[in-house]
Amino acid sequence: MDTRQYMQQVGRQAREASRHMAGASTAAKNDALSRIAHEIRNRREALLEANTRDLDLARAEGLDSALLDRLSLAAGSVEAMAAGLEQIAALPDPVGEISGVKRRPSGIQVGHMRVPLGVVGIIYEARPNVTADAAALCLKAGNAAILRGGKEALHSNQAIATCVRDGLAAAGLPATAVQVVDTTDRAAVGELITMPEFVDVIVPRGGKGLIERISREARVPVIKHLEGNCHIYVDDHADRRQAVAIVENAKTQRYGTCNTAESLLVARGIAAGLLPEIGSMLAGKGVEMRACPESLMLLRDAGIDASLLVPASEADWAEEYLAPIISVKVVTGLDEAIAHINRYGSGHTEAILTDKHSHAMRFLREVDSASVIVNASTRFADGFEYGLGAEIGISTDKIHARGPVGLEGLTSCKWIVLGNGEIRR
Amino acid sequence: MDTRQYMQQVGRQAREASRHMAGASTAAKNDALSRIAHEIRNRREALLEANTRDLDLARAEGLDSALLDRLSLAAGSVEAMAAGLEQIAALPDPVGEISGVKRRPSGIQVGHMRVPLGVVGIIYEARPNVTADAAALCLKAGNAAILRGGKEALHSNQAIATCVRDGLAAAGLPATAVQVVDTTDRAAVGELITMPEFVDVIVPRGGKGLIERISREARVPVIKHLEGNCHIYVDDHADRRQAVAIVENAKTQRYGTCNTAESLLVARGIAAGLLPEIGSMLAGKGVEMRACPESLMLLRDAGIDASLLVPASEADWAEEYLAPIISVKVVTGLDEAIAHINRYGSGHTEAILTDKHSHAMRFLREVDSASVIVNASTRFADGFEYGLGAEIGISTDKIHARGPVGLEGLTSCKWIVLGNGEIRR
Repeated sequence: MDTRQYMQQVGRQAREASRHMAGASTAAKNDALSRIAHEIRNRREALLEANTRDLDLARAEGLDSALLDRLSLAAGSVEAMAAGLEQIAALPDPVGEISGVKRRPSGIQVGHMRVPLGVVGIIYEARPNVTADAAALCLKAGNAAILRGGKEALHSNQAIATCVRDGLAAAGLPATAVQVVDTTDRAAVGELITMPEFVDVIVPRGGKGLIERISREARVPVIKHLEGNCHIYVDDHADRRQAVAIVENAKTQRYGTCNTAESLLVARGIAAGLLPEIGSMLAGKGVEMRACPESLMLLRDAGIDASLLVPASEADWAEEYLAPIISVKVVTGLDEAIAHINRYGSGHTEAILTDKHSHAMRFLREVDSASVIVNASTRFADGFEYGLGAEIGISTDKIHARGPVGLEGLTSCKWIVLGNGEIRR
Repeated sequence: MDTRQYMQQVGRQAREASRHMAGASTAAKNDALSRIAHEIRNRREALLEANTRDLDLARAEGLDSALLDRLSLAAGSVEAMAAGLEQIAALPDPVGEISGVKRRPSGIQVGHMRVPLGVVGIIYEARPNVTADAAALCLKAGNAAILRGGKEALHSNQAIATCVRDGLAAAGLPATAVQVVDTTDRAAVGELITMPEFVDVIVPRGGKGLIERISREARVPVIKHLEGNCHIYVDDHADRRQAVAIVENAKTQRYGTCNTAESLLVARGIAAGLLPEIGSMLAGKGVEMRACPESLMLLRDAGIDASLLVPASEADWAEEYLAPIISVKVVTGLDEAIAHINRYGSGHTEAILTDKHSHAMRFLREVDSASVIVNASTRFADGFEYGLGAEIGISTDKIHARGPVGLEGLTSCKWIVLGNGEIRR
């Protein structure tokens, strides 16, 4: 069987399983999740063995330590996977929720029912814990899932897949409700993203290049996250102490996350008083500042370590550094800040720091981004922090789901009509 | 300027206008809609003149009467366009609505704000009234719109575009918030659907071939309606009088609409008693029945005009006839009905006729379709009947908007976070 035939078969099985899953009871889905968690704990040794095989091969191929780190299932992370499954079991079931039912003049009652999307395809890096997480979220939302993880994690993913299959079957649900693609042939991805008859949505995770390619070539809707060039705008009316603490948290708590601030805009009226303080805090953490001429002057005058001050180029305004670097710009005020963010931002997360209500409200409304924050750190843009319980990813798209995507983002709403023999006049 | 450069300019202007529209007040948007309605009434003669030019050219090219009919702006339809604009002005503004705000343990408050999508591209047939409708819906939802109508309506559309531009400008909104593409070069469509930097969503309307091509080639999300193979399932527990009346309405009220029933499934337990009655009602209206062997026998035995009875082929189950033809199948009961619909349906609208509560509930949940109806006609699947006020189209997709798409479908929800200096721990 070639890759095309194999993926068609996987797709057909997923579509069929999705029909069963759409009608599955909450109890059955939760039972499956508990049983999968149980299987994972039970087969801890087998999982670690499979993971060691992957790690050995990855080391032999000279892969870098960041990748090895993500690939590794140290004993603690096996338990974390199992606990994650139980947490998802504890979340409310979004499926079947009926809302907004209204009686119409014709006599019919019209409303919405939340239902699974159907079949979700997830393409991700060599991170075996994503296999368990993604399977659990799709399952709880009543979907069938096709999972394609990075090839370096093949043995780990297959060991996890066995637990998932067995848990599903023990709960009386179709074992094909979660399928882990077991070929490393790259053509499998090309097939997965071009089977609209079998797949309802693709969630790609990974590097920007991969996601751009998938978006370009997919013939199925894609929920994606391209990049996080997150801004903090410090307004004239900001609380200075809060501003320093929030910029510190947003930029320096973790450098590699997508909700880390990459760009700082400061209103001219507060810049002279505040930038030196923010600058020395950043310098104290070794953060390089790519600054506009005005902020560069203010920072230099404040005696900030010159080796950390670099004149910003046009490209800096659009950059997601994922590193101890931040771009800094003095703006005239709110209008320029909003225009700058809407021009250079990536639509991920932006924050305004202000105590002026009308500025906060305009920023909330006019900034075109998935998360818009007043007086708090950009680092809050996260499924757990927002109360979703877990997230399958963060979307920077505008259609369907924006920002952190949890169970609800893996469902859609259909219309329901309750009649009593009505016909249209 | 070639078509590519022209469309890039249109796109850039739309993106820019969309920033203004996102912040526009409800009063300004409604004012623009009233002024456009006023301009349309004022320039009735000029509109009819432009329309006559289009009609003359279309007749000279020998276009068929259905197309001429859709193209024609008889005096009454000019007034209907103006009145439609005023109706949209009277709808509540969806933009800025804040919902679901909850306080999180970290102290932040998290919720959603409804915001415009940004730039909406609409590709449609030679129906000038769609130009006014689509412009109005996009404008009210705070979007900028790029409209590409059928080339046969070019002069009519440009005359309407002038009214729209003048109305926008008079209300202090950017005249480029609604742009009507004024080239008939087909390459313009290819450009429009591949400019993700300028266009957020495409809504194609028209024939299945066009929509399939657009879906295949688009690099922008598409909200689309492929076809309406709508089913009615008459359950064992149906009210017989209601069943006959609903099938009559759903099949014969209008043959050419997408929510017309194209397929009738009848539970075996009620078929012998009910099919003859439904059959003679349909035969009385000259509706051809493409029937499975069992229903064919029942219909023949009932003495239905043999010239209207045709054995169904496999292809009939998937067919959208848009004509006085219906496929008919006897099924064992609810399970087979649901499986048949999920296999052959187009995801548009399906109805169950039953008085058994558990069957109604299972049908609502398990049938994978944009509209699922209990005991009423499929013809209700419509934006006006559902209370949306107006619709930009009907979506058979699952992502973002399903079924009739009104103002809400032209918006999305972003996350808003209200803090008081919180940082992430």
